[in-house]
Amino acid sequence: MSLLTRIRGPRDLDRLTPGQLAALAEEIRTFLIEEVSKTGGHLGPNLGVVELTIALHRVFDSPRERILFDTGHQSYVHKLLTGRQDFSRLKMKGGLSGYPSRVESEHDVIENSHASTVLGYADGIAKANQLLGHKDCPVVAVTGDGALTGGMAWEALNNIAEAQDRPLVIVVNDNERSYSPTIGGLANHLTTLRATQGYERFLSWGKEALQRTPVIGEGLAGALHGAKKGLKDFIAPQGMFEDLGLKYLGPIDGHDIGALESALRKARGFGGPVIVHVITEKGRGYHAALNNEEDRFHAVGVIHPDTGLPVKTSGKDWTSVFGEEMVELGRERKDIVAITAAMLHPVGLAPFAKAFPKRTFDVGIAEQHAAVSAAGLATAGLHPVVAVYATFLNRAFDQVLMDVALHKLGVTFVLDRAGITGTDGASHNGMWDMSILQVVPGLRLAAPRDAEQLRAQLREAVEVKDAPTVVRFSKGAVGPAVASLGRIGGMDVLHGSTESPVEGEKRADVLIVSVGALASICLEAAALLDAQGITATVVDPRWVKPVDPALPGLAAEHRVVVTVEDNGRAGGVGATVAQALRDAEVDLPLRDFGIPQEFLDHAKREEILAEIGLTGPDIARQVTALVARLDVSQTVEA
Amino acid sequence: MSLLTRIRGPRDLDRLTPGQLAALAEEIRTFLIEEVSKTGGHLGPNLGVVELTIALHRVFDSPRERILFDTGHQSYVHKLLTGRQDFSRLKMKGGLSGYPSRVESEHDVIENSHASTVLGYADGIAKANQLLGHKDCPVVAVTGDGALTGGMAWEALNNIAEAQDRPLVIVVNDNERSYSPTIGGLANHLTTLRATQGYERFLSWGKEALQRTPVIGEGLAGALHGAKKGLKDFIAPQGMFEDLGLKYLGPIDGHDIGALESALRKARGFGGPVIVHVITEKGRGYHAALNNEEDRFHAVGVIHPDTGLPVKTSGKDWTSVFGEEMVELGRERKDIVAITAAMLHPVGLAPFAKAFPKRTFDVGIAEQHAAVSAAGLATAGLHPVVAVYATFLNRAFDQVLMDVALHKLGVTFVLDRAGITGTDGASHNGMWDMSILQVVPGLRLAAPRDAEQLRAQLREAVEVKDAPTVVRFSKGAVGPAVASLGRIGGMDVLHGSTESPVEGEKRADVLIVSVGALASICLEAAALLDAQGITATVVDPRWVKPVDPALPGLAAEHRVVVTVEDNGRAGGVGATVAQALRDAEVDLPLRDFGIPQEFLDHAKREEILAEIGLTGPDIARQVTALVARLDVSQTVEA
Repeated sequence: MSLLTRIRGPRDLDRLTPGQLAALAEEIRTFLIEEVSKTGGHLGPNLGVVELTIALHRVFDSPRERILFDTGHQSYVHKLLTGRQDFSRLKMKGGLSGYPSRVESEHDVIENSHASTVLGYADGIAKANQLLGHKDCPVVAVTGDGALTGGMAWEALNNIAEAQDRPLVIVVNDNERSYSPTIGGLANHLTTLRATQGYERFLSWGKEALQRTPVIGEGLAGALHGAKKGLKDFIAPQGMFEDLGLKYLGPIDGHDIGALESALRKARGFGGPVIVHVITEKGRGYHAALNNEEDRFHAVGVIHPDTGLPVKTSGKDWTSVFGEEMVELGRERKDIVAITAAMLHPVGLAPFAKAFPKRTFDVGIAEQHAAVSAAGLATAGLHPVVAVYATFLNRAFDQVLMDVALHKLGVTFVLDRAGITGTDGASHNGMWDMSILQVVPGLRLAAPRDAEQLRAQLREAVEVKDAPTVVRFSKGAVGPAVASLGRIGGMDVLHGSTESPVEGEKRADVLIVSVGALASICLEAAALLDAQGITATVVDPRWVKPVDPALPGLAAEHRVVVTVEDNGRAGGVGATVAQALRDAEVDLPLRDFGIPQEFLDHAKREEILAEIGLTGPDIARQVTALVARLDVSQTVEA
Repeated sequence: MSLLTRIRGPRDLDRLTPGQLAALAEEIRTFLIEEVSKTGGHLGPNLGVVELTIALHRVFDSPRERILFDTGHQSYVHKLLTGRQDFSRLKMKGGLSGYPSRVESEHDVIENSHASTVLGYADGIAKANQLLGHKDCPVVAVTGDGALTGGMAWEALNNIAEAQDRPLVIVVNDNERSYSPTIGGLANHLTTLRATQGYERFLSWGKEALQRTPVIGEGLAGALHGAKKGLKDFIAPQGMFEDLGLKYLGPIDGHDIGALESALRKARGFGGPVIVHVITEKGRGYHAALNNEEDRFHAVGVIHPDTGLPVKTSGKDWTSVFGEEMVELGRERKDIVAITAAMLHPVGLAPFAKAFPKRTFDVGIAEQHAAVSAAGLATAGLHPVVAVYATFLNRAFDQVLMDVALHKLGVTFVLDRAGITGTDGASHNGMWDMSILQVVPGLRLAAPRDAEQLRAQLREAVEVKDAPTVVRFSKGAVGPAVASLGRIGGMDVLHGSTESPVEGEKRADVLIVSVGALASICLEAAALLDAQGITATVVDPRWVKPVDPALPGLAAEHRVVVTVEDNGRAGGVGATVAQALRDAEVDLPLRDFGIPQEFLDHAKREEILAEIGLTGPDIARQVTALVARLDVSQTVEA
């Protein structure tokens, strides 16, 4: 029997010897590489925190002493140590979540996979512990150097430092990376802290230090550099954390369980807020990950465990279409610059960055700054393109509204992973953007239906000089091109007649307003309706905000209007079209199909779409029923 | 002729002698006290930055070298020096804006009055200046110790520190206050910096230093205290800003124009990012402000200039009703805690804080942290009430959605200044909350119509344990109680019949769904309709999210549905009610009255409501036309 399978809960770690703990760490690494290769998942980050997680559970008494992870993608080892060792359906319907999940375990606290939240939660829990008289119960926040670049982390640190009598242990898991290497002044400061310690240990370390891991080696190099700058700066290192009033312990070798335990025990007994600075190596123990300088296997699909190569390569995806077009645009227009919030590769900006490094800005995990610095760039005459995952734009809502739109600035936001994304669970679905952005005055929003439209609409977007523009598209492979039969106003007709009906006649029974990649579903619904003798027009408005001025008139040429969108129903495109029809006094029955306003469990995109009825047959069935009801009531009235 | 009236633009400052500059500063203070007493406005902050603003315009060449203010409420002196000296209609329709305004002047850049944005804009502008080859053109960001507690400031500092070759001058206007005294580790660190410098100058200053302003005196006291701690810490002060890689100059006496100019010139020539730490006194030169320890006259209404006392006291306002009820609730329930984002007094939490200081948390200008730390407090078993201005909740949208709602936590958000607030302009109107919060699964939202309902609904809100609740109300005086005639579902009937109609009959012609304080407008509309023979039912749903299950059935007993809300129309209550009716297959004509989705110019609330047609007569007129149209079409059909 392996060591791992004998761990049913954290307390089973207590009786292991140092040798067994090291063996357990190796077992866990092997398990992660084998299992996550089969399902896909956040492999690199979890390989980096094996020893750290073991040490945390040895020192702290979870769940009484809460251990919070920021973000939860680094919680796989935590899952293994808290009774969850079946990874066979990781991130799949019915299987383990890719993040902490309170349904799975009492050891899990934060499910949100948006970064930089953990210090805020911890501050709240520490305050509550104090008020409730749990004076000696520490709360542990495990965060990363990347997450610290987010503004929420700063707001929290500022508050945590305010009171020195609330036990709160901040573990900074410093792997010098967010998704990719962490940027900014803080990252440089962390390097200095690493370097400082390097110097302090320099005399005693000697040759040994030079043979340590590359990460520590860098620290040493920094220390030598520091020594050249003069000794003074290094004698009494006053880190910025201590300037803020936070006790600092470290740096600690994050792969030395003994050193980790010793530091964490010291921190646990401190009685107030304390930072433990832990140096880890992302992708540790897996050559394929370590050889990948791009992201150290931050998140992988299904891979060959030996080579780390993807098992199947899918077709061209939305992201790379965007990435290619950006390079073209960059060549044509010198005023275009690109901004990413620590996700250069995932959002497709790597080719642009390679071609135009000076015109590419990685701002850290800082969506607010992405938007407001874009406002600054636009103020000074450039046209920024901010590329983020749709769900993360929520962090910058106020900045899009107040700093960009109120100031009538030409900034383009490109939202990747819009709509149902699926396997990453509720907080990764991009189902909010087309609702909250509806309230932003002047903002224009495009939802391209295929690769060609993505290229075209991106080009239209960057032409707008006096308002924010948004281009949003789905996750994954882009489908085949969907041809337009003609235009009505700015809308592409995808199905039905492009000719105006004779006065007094209807164009068709049903107008289907199709949004983005759901065009194929709408065309399927239209074909099914046709087969039943219900005629349909399908239009793609291309720009869903503002509502095309020709839409109410077109709607009036039908008996029923249907909208179909890959977005939450509340306040989405359907609600907006309905309002436009009311304003034009076109009082027709309308049915709006979209995502129910709920937090959806993780499952594949197709499974979720089927579950929520966003399929051609579901839509056709409901429209048929509505038309039948109208037929009956009109017969009665006649 | 006074000195001030001879200043038509910043360059007119160049030829003034030091003595004339000091005299100009005195003139400006007198002007501000006299003029702002008459109109109301942000008096205290502007009295603090007179010398600083003069020095800024002497050293920098605006508008080529952009000077950005965070927030713009400290831009009155800037207005006076850039050709805007008619303050007679400050914040009134057609008069000067209370913030920078690009329509008013080419010297204005940022209009947004939400705090902590300026460093982000400046980073963007500095990046653009570099790309565009304006190598030696610095950008100047004037921010405060309060604004630095916001996460956006941190995100920006982290980015600004990344490159050392972009000229960017950060002026930290440190008055130790946000609205009220600034909290947190950063504020403590700024105190240390003040103290440090005090020590360094100690030997040479001698007696002179002891006679300086009280603020510097405090610095000195701190320095003496520091000296007791031992000299070492003060010999090489390594502030956190320098840790981040930002050059630090200061502290500078913010009321010594010569010292300010000298520091700013040094900063201007530095060629990279540099912080100038300026110590100012909020309310300087005005005894009434200085004697007010609560907020140093941060923002005043119309006051007597000599005494600083308000000219008229209005009736009881929404804020104080909330504040009183919170104290009651605090007595009854020990699990209730209160959170403010640096606005204890304006949001009405001062009485609660007085009664329960340990259960009150001021988190700084940090709405994100207000929400996420509330999530932490709720995780640990307490019930937090987060009180913020409605427009500022936009900053915490992602946290409300992901950290509170996804985690099914009982946190109550109380939104003051919801709806049209008016004189503070576009960015203060609370016209977004009822739209963006509609997308949050599980969230419940109440809009009380009067004081009694506010008390009742606040109590209902804090009973909810598994979801966020929101209570939103208007600015200013609360109107008289509006009686309920009875209940249908959870809805109060305010006008019309409370009895169900006979089968096949209608209850009335029009159902008016009234939201919050607009009840009086709805009742006026109903009376006007009645007078024309159009019968109306008026209901107040009390909880506008979720839509009351009884609403579709009630709507079906009418010919037309009307919604009236003090919120943007896009995705608001009207849109949501319309969707609920569609889902219930109640396909009636509906008209939704609310705020047009635009950025509204500053004017009084009543003026704006009249302008946008949110009045009883406007609503009655439009409903009458709609009913007449329905009569015609039904006659035609028959």
